[in-house]
Amino acid sequence: MTKGRLEAFSDGVIAILITILVLELKVPHGTDLDALRPMLPTFLTYVLSFVYVGIYWNNHHHLLHATTGVSAGILWANLHLLFWLSLIPFVTGWMGENHFAAVPTAIYGGVLFAAAIAYLILEIAIIAHQGPESKLREAIGREWKGKLSVLCYLSAILLAFVNHWYSHGLYVFVALLWLIPDRRIEAKLRE
Amino acid sequence: MTKGRLEAFSDGVIAILITILVLELKVPHGTDLDALRPMLPTFLTYVLSFVYVGIYWNNHHHLLHATTGVSAGILWANLHLLFWLSLIPFVTGWMGENHFAAVPTAIYGGVLFAAAIAYLILEIAIIAHQGPESKLREAIGREWKGKLSVLCYLSAILLAFVNHWYSHGLYVFVALLWLIPDRRIEAKLRE
Amino acid sequence: MTKGRLEAFSDGVIAILITILVLELKVPHGTDLDALRPMLPTFLTYVLSFVYVGIYWNNHHHLLHATTGVSAGILWANLHLLFWLSLIPFVTGWMGENHFAAVPTAIYGGVLFAAAIAYLILEIAIIAHQGPESKLREAIGREWKGKLSVLCYLSAILLAFVNHWYSHGLYVFVALLWLIPDRRIEAKLRE
Amino acid sequence: MTKGRLEAFSDGVIAILITILVLELKVPHGTDLDALRPMLPTFLTYVLSFVYVGIYWNNHHHLLHATTGVSAGILWANLHLLFWLSLIPFVTGWMGENHFAAVPTAIYGGVLFAAAIAYLILEIAIIAHQGPESKLREAIGREWKGKLSVLCYLSAILLAFVNHWYSHGLYVFVALLWLIPDRRIEAKLRE
Repeated sequence: MTKGRLEAFSDGVIAILITILVLELKVPHGTDLDALRPMLPTFLTYVLSFVYVGIYWNNHHHLLHATTGVSAGILWANLHLLFWLSLIPFVTGWMGENHFAAVPTAIYGGVLFAAAIAYLILEIAIIAHQGPESKLREAIGREWKGKLSVLCYLSAILLAFVNHWYSHGLYVFVALLWLIPDRRIEAKLRE
Repeated sequence: MTKGRLEAFSDGVIAILITILVLELKVPHGTDLDALRPMLPTFLTYVLSFVYVGIYWNNHHHLLHATTGVSAGILWANLHLLFWLSLIPFVTGWMGENHFAAVPTAIYGGVLFAAAIAYLILEIAIIAHQGPESKLREAIGREWKGKLSVLCYLSAILLAFVNHWYSHGLYVFVALLWLIPDRRIEAKLRE
Repeated sequence: MTKGRLEAFSDGVIAILITILVLELKVPHGTDLDALRPMLPTFLTYVLSFVYVGIYWNNHHHLLHATTGVSAGILWANLHLLFWLSLIPFVTGWMGENHFAAVPTAIYGGVLFAAAIAYLILEIAIIAHQGPESKLREAIGREWKGKLSVLCYLSAILLAFVNHWYSHGLYVFVALLWLIPDRRIEAKLRE
Repeated sequence: MTKGRLEAFSDGVIAILITILVLELKVPHGTDLDALRPMLPTFLTYVLSFVYVGIYWNNHHHLLHATTGVSAGILWANLHLLFWLSLIPFVTGWMGENHFAAVPTAIYGGVLFAAAIAYLILEIAIIAHQGPESKLREAIGREWKGKLSVLCYLSAILLAFVNHWYSHGLYVFVALLWLIPDRRIEAKLRE
């Protein structure tokens, strides 16, 4: 069983997810700039979710690059990850339309948390399939970003009921965490 | 004629189907957890349909893996299968919005039944194209899950008018049937 | 310049088109079979359009299979074809919702006509790129189905204002024309 | 890291974008030709945006063809381009529904401007990754169309508040700029 179709299918689902996010941006009725102002929370949420789906695509790309064979367990762990990612347009729309209210903000974090756990399960399924000499196992041992992200999501869920700005700060922080250091590491690798 | 584009096209359609399912989850108007409660049937139906489309993608993946050439008959049998799968978002939305009413529950089973028959026709078209020495023919002779599934769908259609919970129990049972034993078989194969 | 990405992009667009057609099937409000009855024209139009998009995918598959290189002219002729195909969900929805009224029926034929002309232009662009020894030129000389289809579309557009059933008869006839004989020809080829 | 999945993912996103544009064409309620007349601005905007997305796909195709490796910077620069392209359905719908009002017309130009800058950033990221002997650097030095386009977008944004027809003239002019000369250059190359 080859990984080609698994990659193609995942790429397809993630590409559709990142694109139908824009369907949550409903065309406003007015024709002046004021008509855009109430859309600002929806737009910012759109940007945030776009970046998150992009990060997942990017990491998924690297993860499968380090994968050789595909087992049924990997197929289902991958579908499980895609399931949680597929809920992102829904929670994005809910959080954006309600100007970052507490419950939608917490649920948004809940979906990010579940996706992070699903990603972890996918990594475990791949390591289990690769056996004791798995190279991925080593790589993941050094991976502190995934653990920190999960911690941030959990904090954001709780903090949503204190002050939702803390939660959004954490969501933006995690996004930057994945966006920025990758370049630094890559630069080091190329030295 | 190669099977590459057939796989790519099918992957594309199935990836889009599994993703636009989420468009049936309409953003609720409230901002508390109560706003999510009436969505529970829609959400559970979403999970069920996501798993079914995932199972079809998985099985389709394996079926085409065992296929060498592609005939016009296979192309059309494949499109016929995709046609019935394409109705899943519609029946998912109908059943979910109506809290599992009898007729939508039966129609949901009807579409699953038609998709199962279409899958069978696709298998027959592939076997016919492979000729008398088809390896697929043997594999299908041993396949009891497909037959049991069809029986369950038929029972679920009838039972929807008695008590729709029987039907949903059967839909969940068939989904688990395909999810669980595959792993067991695979484990045996790897011994 | 290779044809791989042209095929992949066209497959993507056609797969999305055939799938978003189903978004025209709006979930009905009732929960009994009567709720489905007013959807019958929409459903039949959906089936017809699904078959047409399937035929275009099939023919496009064969056409590009006979293509070696890709020129800018081919890229744009291909996008021009995809443009007319992209209008099929719109005219499908309009014709279906209006129970086959005269003008939507004629416009539906107009889009099919324009897509057929766009397909012809794509063939001409490919032949022009292949030069005087084009194998495609011969194949197209024998192709009577394309010409007959165009004639049927033109007749259907005019007949929509006399009796729309003639038009629908012609649309179904053209669809069968492409569905059935392909198998016969293939059978002959395999002898 | 290979560019295959980057191409596949970008193709997927662009194919979905060009297709969901059609979802902005809402099915009209009437059944005569008059029902289509108020849709004319939406339709013309649809054609314009279809051509623009087609041009971006075409140029992206060529740009990645000249690319060998993929860095994290290239991945993110590519996602950044896809982000701005993903806003095209939204601004298309807004401009079309409001019969080319000043602000939506200017915002439409703003998104095209941002996409052009994102494309430039992607080119710079690729050149930076290719190092001092980059062939792309030379090619871009001769590229006057990108610079002229950016100038036209900026003018169109300002002119939208004077007379929106100037802006639309400029949008059509830029589209033709990319459509027509490519063929002429290609013809010369084949001599």
